[in-house]
Amino acid sequence: MTGSYTIGLDYGTNSVRALIVNVAHGREVAGAVWNYEHGTDGVILSRDPNLARQHPADYVKGTELSVKKALADARKDVRGFKLDQVIGIGVDTTGSTPLPVDKAGRPLAFDKRLAKNSAAMAWLWKDHTSVAEAAEITAKARELRPQYLAKCGGTYSSEWFFSKILHCLRTAPKVFDAAHTWVECADWVPAMLTGTEAPDQIAVGVCAAGHKAMYNDDWGGYPDAKFLGALDPKLGELRARLRPKAHTIERAAGRLTEEWARRTGLRSGIPVAVGAFDAHLGAVGSGIGPGTLVKIIGTSTCDMMVAPVSQPVADVPGLCGIVNGSILPSHFGLEAGQSAVGDIFNWFVNCLQPGGRKLGSHESLSAGAAKLQPGESGLLALDWNNGNRTVLVDQRLTGLLLGQTLYTTPSEIYRALIEATAFGALTIINRFEEYGMKVERVVNCGGIAEKNPLVMQIYADVTGRPMLVSRSPQTCALGAAVAGAVVARAYPDFPTAQKAMTGLKPQVYRPTPKSHAAYKELYALYMKLHDAFGTRECQGNLFGVMKQLIEIRNRVRG
Amino acid sequence: MTGSYTIGLDYGTNSVRALIVNVAHGREVAGAVWNYEHGTDGVILSRDPNLARQHPADYVKGTELSVKKALADARKDVRGFKLDQVIGIGVDTTGSTPLPVDKAGRPLAFDKRLAKNSAAMAWLWKDHTSVAEAAEITAKARELRPQYLAKCGGTYSSEWFFSKILHCLRTAPKVFDAAHTWVECADWVPAMLTGTEAPDQIAVGVCAAGHKAMYNDDWGGYPDAKFLGALDPKLGELRARLRPKAHTIERAAGRLTEEWARRTGLRSGIPVAVGAFDAHLGAVGSGIGPGTLVKIIGTSTCDMMVAPVSQPVADVPGLCGIVNGSILPSHFGLEAGQSAVGDIFNWFVNCLQPGGRKLGSHESLSAGAAKLQPGESGLLALDWNNGNRTVLVDQRLTGLLLGQTLYTTPSEIYRALIEATAFGALTIINRFEEYGMKVERVVNCGGIAEKNPLVMQIYADVTGRPMLVSRSPQTCALGAAVAGAVVARAYPDFPTAQKAMTGLKPQVYRPTPKSHAAYKELYALYMKLHDAFGTRECQGNLFGVMKQLIEIRNRVRG
Repeated sequence: MTGSYTIGLDYGTNSVRALIVNVAHGREVAGAVWNYEHGTDGVILSRDPNLARQHPADYVKGTELSVKKALADARKDVRGFKLDQVIGIGVDTTGSTPLPVDKAGRPLAFDKRLAKNSAAMAWLWKDHTSVAEAAEITAKARELRPQYLAKCGGTYSSEWFFSKILHCLRTAPKVFDAAHTWVECADWVPAMLTGTEAPDQIAVGVCAAGHKAMYNDDWGGYPDAKFLGALDPKLGELRARLRPKAHTIERAAGRLTEEWARRTGLRSGIPVAVGAFDAHLGAVGSGIGPGTLVKIIGTSTCDMMVAPVSQPVADVPGLCGIVNGSILPSHFGLEAGQSAVGDIFNWFVNCLQPGGRKLGSHESLSAGAAKLQPGESGLLALDWNNGNRTVLVDQRLTGLLLGQTLYTTPSEIYRALIEATAFGALTIINRFEEYGMKVERVVNCGGIAEKNPLVMQIYADVTGRPMLVSRSPQTCALGAAVAGAVVARAYPDFPTAQKAMTGLKPQVYRPTPKSHAAYKELYALYMKLHDAFGTRECQGNLFGVMKQLIEIRNRVRG
Repeated sequence: MTGSYTIGLDYGTNSVRALIVNVAHGREVAGAVWNYEHGTDGVILSRDPNLARQHPADYVKGTELSVKKALADARKDVRGFKLDQVIGIGVDTTGSTPLPVDKAGRPLAFDKRLAKNSAAMAWLWKDHTSVAEAAEITAKARELRPQYLAKCGGTYSSEWFFSKILHCLRTAPKVFDAAHTWVECADWVPAMLTGTEAPDQIAVGVCAAGHKAMYNDDWGGYPDAKFLGALDPKLGELRARLRPKAHTIERAAGRLTEEWARRTGLRSGIPVAVGAFDAHLGAVGSGIGPGTLVKIIGTSTCDMMVAPVSQPVADVPGLCGIVNGSILPSHFGLEAGQSAVGDIFNWFVNCLQPGGRKLGSHESLSAGAAKLQPGESGLLALDWNNGNRTVLVDQRLTGLLLGQTLYTTPSEIYRALIEATAFGALTIINRFEEYGMKVERVVNCGGIAEKNPLVMQIYADVTGRPMLVSRSPQTCALGAAVAGAVVARAYPDFPTAQKAMTGLKPQVYRPTPKSHAAYKELYALYMKLHDAFGTRECQGNLFGVMKQLIEIRNRVRG
């Protein structure tokens, strides 16, 4: 095993990253990033602010160039590195990012006649054109198949697989009719690398299918044709062209083709793991296992847990999804999240620019905020500037700041916003535990966990738990490389591979008892606001206020 | 009357202004401002942020210099102007701003031994050292004399006469013992000019006595000795050294002394009106009469109305005070107000500095805000950054901003803050009308009314009423000059004098029906927040949230 490497391929919103990892200890020996060349930073936009697409040609070119560059760097930097020491590949992507394909599994966007039609491209995770269809699917499932909703937090999202396909059917019927079927980006990339794109051969990952397409072995896979047909007969017909069975990342999607071996310099025939979403492989790369909550903190957060399938897991209200095998084989994968974390701090710094660009940087605001004690500002905020994903599952909630006087400073507000996201994080931990998922340790990863010690310390103080930080700054690509190692049989299973290949930074952020005590009081007040504005049950008639403001706003904006 | 002038003397927080007004038509012919020379911009501060005093020497020097300068300018600029054409003087000051005096009525601060003792100076209106004593007086009055509280909104303030005297008694007993009695600045200045400082001669104005010292003819003037003695025996003894009767501005405090004639160049023997507070004479200078609400909009607002004493006026809950004769003779004067208006906009611009100093000016934020439609931002704010004076009478309320997303801009927040103050203004209008005081027209004055048309338009759209603006930018000094004209018998009464000497600007801000309709909806939401956070009665358990945050803050800050 010494001298063996795997590659993790991480397809993000703006770029693709190829990471070469030493299988023995998980250290990264080389990596390369290629920025997508279509659209704006890789995202095709339009006059409709809800539209966000990617051109699949970027996946093809980006794979070749990033892998070649990473391999070239490894050969330069790593003594004795040889191309045939790379024994496997894993893939993670954004999602749900489905793309329409033809009978051969070729993306419709590769057809010259459709190359500029955004409906024929990949519908990027953050495309929000399909709000009406999401509401329709939710309503229909509530009526006909409530069990479908129970596993995805009670609401089917506009970001998800069938919402987007149904929207295409309604608004771009020619593209829909030209498509033989639809494939998640996470499934299409491994198929491309292994020559298994044909719709009757492609290996579909249970991560995407389970979290975004209501796939569940308990009811025979994807939603049944009758249900889909009730939404639209053509959607019902599509059901027969979806795969009957989805797989975990333990399985290889296939083996690297001669063509891709030639294009990259890798050895042909090495296994490529079934694809999964970035957050899920990020959890793998952070060493997830039962009892560990992995928080992937970026513009938003994903909060991931697993539970052995041998133990029954309750349907946790407000969770984004509970899917057998979506993170680790033989484990339920549970996904929660906060709709905005870094995005809230970025809003404050970039949109409000308090104190101007110089005084209002993240660094100077953090420095000012770090001087404050919990409760010293008298401020309290809700972290809902982009809605609330868990536990309220309500995109039409908005931000709130309370307690400002005539002397309130930007640093005080910045700290209150950090604290608000920490209170949101605690609410998720509490929800997991209320439903029997004991959180024994919390591992953080992502840019904010890496770069902002104040945020980590506040999270420790608010939650009363030590905050651990994942060793790798590229946990998603590392998790993909771990999957590459498992399918290459370098390790017998994921726990063994994770133990060898993942780790933590030495620094642990520990809660200080005095701060934790203060935050307990503040959290009780946060929950009062949370329940008053976020739940129907709470008396006081404030539940509707944020929504009515949005209704008025939408009416005024036309 | 042609060729007659009066002088309005306006003693502010930082300076004194002398305004020379033509009695025939109220036009200002000359004016001069003298900045106080003690302390910081005229305010003596200390390590205690609640302390704010003025040195009475500034009143003396400022009177002489500002009057001399104004007269010199008038002689230069007005053809044929002669000093003996000035026939009367009126005085307005801040308040409650009491000062301790000796047996001759001389301020203790003029005694060299006490010249640097801040307790011996004038206790400026915004001095907040006496919070504990205010609570004590409120509690004692609730127990023994509930009628005292009914006329001042239910709570005796730390800014008021007896709170300050009691605090002096408790914390600077030597100063208290050295004082023969205490005099409001508004009474002391006319006494100084007319040589009537002796405590058994001084003419006390009912404006200060009624609004700040619980004076009421119905119960025999100031609070009785037994009540004051229950707070402290020495305070009970002081009662005998307060004047038995207070007067309206219709009465002359006396006639200008030879000495002050010599110092200023004015003719000796001209009458000086009894003094009153700036806001009250500002209302006079804005043409107040029954049915007219005068809004004096600055850092905070005063909202003034009058009602003929012939009609019974209910005790309006939440009003700062209802005092017979405090604005116009033979009328009840009713004072409401918002604790912060301009101060909220200044906080946003100066403390938060959104977009930096250049982009974040009042001008550029107003320009951005003016482009928005009502409801377009989705934001809603409460105007409580400095507490709520009317109708909640609760200094421990704080600001709230709700509805922010990841795209909320500084201009949107700025507009939401303006709208919040407009909603607060409407709440005051509604409270007046609920208690039978019909608001037939609204006249605005002060810097913001003069300079920010967006604020005035939003006030018109929110209230659904035309916003009129007072013609004079110096309504307080003009009101004082009107009082000078009445005591000089240039007019038989205030209505006649006001009709001749005050007026409105030609521009009227009229409500647009579409905006008013939108604001009706938003106001309903504002009132939901108002009641939820501001009243005990509202279900939802949010009443305590702001107060608990303040308690935590105070504990943390020690």
